[in-house]
Amino acid sequence: MTRKLLTEHIRLMKSFLCVGLDPDLEKIPKHLLNEPDPIFAFNKAIIDATHVYCVSYKPNSAFYEAHGAKGFQSLVKTIDYIKTNYPSHFIIADAKRGDIGNTSGMYAKAFFNEMKADAITVAPYMGSDSVKPFLTHKDKWVVLLGLTSNEGAFDFQTKDLADKKKVFEQVLETSKSWGNAENMMYVIGATKAEWLTDVRKIIPDHFLLIPGVGAQGGSLEEVCKYGLNKDIGLLINSSRQIIYASNKEDFAQKAAEEAAKVQKEMERWIP
Amino acid sequence: MTRKLLTEHIRLMKSFLCVGLDPDLEKIPKHLLNEPDPIFAFNKAIIDATHVYCVSYKPNSAFYEAHGAKGFQSLVKTIDYIKTNYPSHFIIADAKRGDIGNTSGMYAKAFFNEMKADAITVAPYMGSDSVKPFLTHKDKWVVLLGLTSNEGAFDFQTKDLADKKKVFEQVLETSKSWGNAENMMYVIGATKAEWLTDVRKIIPDHFLLIPGVGAQGGSLEEVCKYGLNKDIGLLINSSRQIIYASNKEDFAQKAAEEAAKVQKEMERWIP
Repeated sequence: MTRKLLTEHIRLMKSFLCVGLDPDLEKIPKHLLNEPDPIFAFNKAIIDATHVYCVSYKPNSAFYEAHGAKGFQSLVKTIDYIKTNYPSHFIIADAKRGDIGNTSGMYAKAFFNEMKADAITVAPYMGSDSVKPFLTHKDKWVVLLGLTSNEGAFDFQTKDLADKKKVFEQVLETSKSWGNAENMMYVIGATKAEWLTDVRKIIPDHFLLIPGVGAQGGSLEEVCKYGLNKDIGLLINSSRQIIYASNKEDFAQKAAEEAAKVQKEMERWIP
Repeated sequence: MTRKLLTEHIRLMKSFLCVGLDPDLEKIPKHLLNEPDPIFAFNKAIIDATHVYCVSYKPNSAFYEAHGAKGFQSLVKTIDYIKTNYPSHFIIADAKRGDIGNTSGMYAKAFFNEMKADAITVAPYMGSDSVKPFLTHKDKWVVLLGLTSNEGAFDFQTKDLADKKKVFEQVLETSKSWGNAENMMYVIGATKAEWLTDVRKIIPDHFLLIPGVGAQGGSLEEVCKYGLNKDIGLLINSSRQIIYASNKEDFAQKAAEEAAKVQKEMERWIP
């Protein structure tokens, strides 16, 4: 998907919400466990109920791989379902991959060709040749980890380098030349919203994928205040707060209500 | 697998060779493409032919995921085949995963419970809580990326921090307290063998997984000179040089011959 289409879709839907599809068999409604593919059944219901309030879905690969090949198939089916029924929605495979060049090429094949994801999250530690193979696919995106929302972000990402830059700032600075604002986004955790000012100095134009709003404690208002750019430039992810709003038969309805609340808050930030 | 068993197996086999199982349909012998599962057929033949010369196998997940759920099933079958037929061999799922805590827990479930890998490679960028969920599984290992063998390693891993340590040295220093030499190893690329002296100052006791010998240009002699410790402490990986020694009907025989050559070189380093 092009940046232009994504931005237009955001303005049309008055939403920059990304719904994280992290289906956990211990948390989804019990009645779904009788379905032939409970994970897909859960996702399908969530997607059908929430698509009018969001512009993006982000299935996290771990929750599917945990069930082996069958789980992997549920991921394929989920992405296929979104692509077929809601083709304007931007699909991020949250896989946090990255390996030497020829191997990253194989991951690109997995998520862009075998599956039809629009984007994949990639870890930066292995540097340019681990990221570039994902950037050769037309209208596909890398979402590179910049500053993550977890406690462990302080172990290495925020360490000062000899030239005073922080490691994550160096990651943004170096990596932005590998692609451009049309094929790269960055993960910047909402739990450190005030850092967005510094981030925007380095990458004013790129889209940012912001996890950590909701269950992890980040504030939507703070993120918008410091992170918005002229093309909106934000996708804000919420997973647990939406998809586990209820674990009863009304789960999809409750998920829609939570997504609607977030969309309503977002509306006022879209000119 | 315990460290004790791994070390005993190395002494018994007079080998610390790890064979990388990176099956690429464009490189495997053409006659295998008629098999119902060409990837598994290729791996099975390679494993049966090479197991007497190595102590470990390292399937790289990307090469399986590139074929979707079917490929993922080939990975499951491959690991299961090794576990069943050669249970003393140490299986490293080369997956380079790592995510926030509950998500890394799901990856651990995928590779340690659903599959029966002994170890998984993990990327350090997201810090402690992205790694620790892998360390709570008894007799399972994290192989953390330290200094990788690719060109991109120089983008961030070798950058100087404010206190003069390099980023990858900080990764070794900080992460070694997350586990111990019984459940953590580190990836250190053979293409930078002289750096092993510095690495051994920080982590004298840990096993190192060394990629980059062979096709990527690293030297076995250099690695042994700088990297060996009192328990051997090395697993040296070779993938392409062994598994693609021939792409004809004799591919397994030729792979065995290549593996035997490496084993022979290793023998003299094992007291």
